[in-house]
Amino acid sequence: MEPVNLDAMLARFAEHWSPKRIAQVNNYDVRIVKVQGEFTWHTHPDTDEFFLVLGGQLTIQMRDRDVVLGPRELFVVPRGAEHCPRADTETALLLFEPSDGVNTGDVGGELTAEVETLA
Amino acid sequence: MEPVNLDAMLARFAEHWSPKRIAQVNNYDVRIVKVQGEFTWHTHPDTDEFFLVLGGQLTIQMRDRDVVLGPRELFVVPRGAEHCPRADTETALLLFEPSDGVNTGDVGGELTAEVETLA
Repeated sequence: MEPVNLDAMLARFAEHWSPKRIAQVNNYDVRIVKVQGEFTWHTHPDTDEFFLVLGGQLTIQMRDRDVVLGPRELFVVPRGAEHCPRADTETALLLFEPSDGVNTGDVGGELTAEVETLA
Repeated sequence: MEPVNLDAMLARFAEHWSPKRIAQVNNYDVRIVKVQGEFTWHTHPDTDEFFLVLGGQLTIQMRDRDVVLGPRELFVVPRGAEHCPRADTETALLLFEPSDGVNTGDVGGELTAEVETLA
């Protein structure tokens, strides 16, 4: 692989809630995604989910609290914990999750995105 | 877990080449490390190794080329590829690797560091 510049990769797409694979580590993906607005409540029964904010601000709504993350802040949603991400302005995230992971977890529906690879 | 601020975590230690676990994603660690100078040539026979530069500049020497990474740049050293990281000035990195991963891979020696957890 070639070195990956996060900002060059972020400049290559505009759509929201559609993760892009930018690297793989064993059977895990490193993905970036732009988000704005509210996603959908969902759960990943079989995996933790890692969020690192690259720019903007992310609120991870969980049933017992909200976690608010700014740039260079990260959080891991534990497997099985229902959550709903929200961003009031456009926000860029780096995700680390199993390569077979689906963005909408157990819920599915029209927000389910195929993960495109940016090479 | 609580949200993790990378800069607050980086402020909590000064030593070089001693990775700190700041989060876990399934059986993977998210680690941060400060490096300066040259590490040792080594290989991870069983795992890829992910490097993201948080500040400074990292050169990953490999047998066929050098990969140079600045802030917000990342690279994955493939499993089995011999490599030797080097940083001319103090550089901060974020790593994803299996929780049982050892920093010196197959080589061992005095640079082998126990991974402390920063909570």
